[in-house]
Amino acid sequence: MSIRVGIMGYGNLGRGIECALKQNADMELVAVFTRRDPSSVKILTEGVGVYHVDEAPNMKDKIDVLIMCGGSATDLPKQTKEYAKYFNVVDSFDTHAKIPEHFAAVDEAAQASGKVAMISVGWDPGMFSLNRLYANAILPNGSDYTFWGKGVSQGHSDAIRRVEGVANGKQYTVPVEEALERVRSGENPELSTRDKHTRECYVVAKEGADKAKIEAEIKNMPNYFADYNTSVTFITEEELQRDHSGIPHGGFVIRSGKTGWNEENNHIIEYSLKLDSNPEFTASVIVAYARAAYRMYKEGQKGCKTVFDVAPAYLSPVSAEELRAHLL
Amino acid sequence: MSIRVGIMGYGNLGRGIECALKQNADMELVAVFTRRDPSSVKILTEGVGVYHVDEAPNMKDKIDVLIMCGGSATDLPKQTKEYAKYFNVVDSFDTHAKIPEHFAAVDEAAQASGKVAMISVGWDPGMFSLNRLYANAILPNGSDYTFWGKGVSQGHSDAIRRVEGVANGKQYTVPVEEALERVRSGENPELSTRDKHTRECYVVAKEGADKAKIEAEIKNMPNYFADYNTSVTFITEEELQRDHSGIPHGGFVIRSGKTGWNEENNHIIEYSLKLDSNPEFTASVIVAYARAAYRMYKEGQKGCKTVFDVAPAYLSPVSAEELRAHLL
Repeated sequence: MSIRVGIMGYGNLGRGIECALKQNADMELVAVFTRRDPSSVKILTEGVGVYHVDEAPNMKDKIDVLIMCGGSATDLPKQTKEYAKYFNVVDSFDTHAKIPEHFAAVDEAAQASGKVAMISVGWDPGMFSLNRLYANAILPNGSDYTFWGKGVSQGHSDAIRRVEGVANGKQYTVPVEEALERVRSGENPELSTRDKHTRECYVVAKEGADKAKIEAEIKNMPNYFADYNTSVTFITEEELQRDHSGIPHGGFVIRSGKTGWNEENNHIIEYSLKLDSNPEFTASVIVAYARAAYRMYKEGQKGCKTVFDVAPAYLSPVSAEELRAHLL
Repeated sequence: MSIRVGIMGYGNLGRGIECALKQNADMELVAVFTRRDPSSVKILTEGVGVYHVDEAPNMKDKIDVLIMCGGSATDLPKQTKEYAKYFNVVDSFDTHAKIPEHFAAVDEAAQASGKVAMISVGWDPGMFSLNRLYANAILPNGSDYTFWGKGVSQGHSDAIRRVEGVANGKQYTVPVEEALERVRSGENPELSTRDKHTRECYVVAKEGADKAKIEAEIKNMPNYFADYNTSVTFITEEELQRDHSGIPHGGFVIRSGKTGWNEENNHIIEYSLKLDSNPEFTASVIVAYARAAYRMYKEGQKGCKTVFDVAPAYLSPVSAEELRAHLL
């Protein structure tokens, strides 16, 4: 019998979950929940109902795992702990600094309900975190480097669009190739913010706006751009739609460390992602962890978990014997 | 109290374990076992005894984890299951085709003794296997690519040295950069053996040997070289010692896969290693899994395990709270 999955919130991530479920024969989508009028939400999967969020608790016996697809700022801090009362849940909570607090609240709910609640699943936090953990455990004597991009930063794109005279804009975070090469060489460089990433801005100016002023305002914006080498390129709305409508992202997690009695040997462990669609990849990671959450629940586990607590075999639909024979 | 570790077999890998233990404050080396005369074996760590293998069972209460450092061809198939009767054990059994058989034998012993026995730990099998599993679970619709090198292949170096007229030699397996780039581009190419790797041979000829004949014999050797583009470079013994005495290795595990309702988006997950010392890195992985084996044993687990069965948090000396706060 397949694992019955519900989606809470139907934006880019929710749609990504729906697409990922289509690729996993052991799982099926059984419901989508929305705060909007359900009749206004059209989903891709035929024969699956869209319900108002308020109906979710009534469907607790029809859903094995509920995937939380809201935002980290306001939705998930409330929703994940609330729905962990009724369901095994998975979320992608990504406010790194607030993870301990979120973990505690969700754990309390899931311990009480006897469900498994998996938080902060995706690629960062998620696969990048895992790779930091593995690499640190293997090479205790070393340095960590994380680079992001090339990819779209939603927060920085929003910041551009708030500048006076700007009609539209998109920002790419780009890792500095030279810095990557220095890390890969085993040099263990100290890298400043400016050394690691550049910021590329594509900006549509409003009719008659002062472009020089816009460019200066962006480049000098504190926190967002002032600490980086930033480029500003003015383009038309048509060019923006044509060339910059995707949501690619990715990045690199590198650990460089020494071994040997006198630390004479250097090793580089590198993990990288190059993603055409940030939300669809995040969704693909979440779906694998939804499978794990359900299996761990079936084994009698409960409470809040992160990717650090999940033995890799739980993620795969393939049996342990097959995994040992073919992937090990 | 630190985790007390024993080393069974003191070659390159055993010495690597000894070096890795020095970097892990929560673990300590308490004994080295050898088939040689113990008085003839000098180890690096002061104050630690070297014992004959026959004494190992008598020390079962003094050792928390015994690390098996023999070879996969003849040592480990006998030793791992034997010592799993007395100890939590970790080995690096790397004959991929025989893993199911080895697992079954070791599991039987460890289930009976109530110990945890971790097999096939290292980087391939090991970290490469893990990355294959994670990437397959995340992107079910895709292709796997594994490239090895640049690194020394012991088997191929041995094959060169068996050629008539050869005094000494070393072989490097080298991934083809163009093939790597095609995979990274998302093209999903079909790659032949010859497309993926080249073989670089550095050969010291005996006085008066026919170099053209040696070169032809190496390049046409079935299984080892005939299916590859192979280069043969003649050098002196001094040059071999000076420039080729290291045992570097590494490689790349890449999965390229599609997501989206119509499979319209491509993603590349890449994991790579660049290792100055193959045995020291393998040893570093093993030591992290020795920590995990002991913790899982303390929790009441038993039987044979692989890297697929180990939740990542067990590998780190850092507490779960700290991991969540700083690495997630």
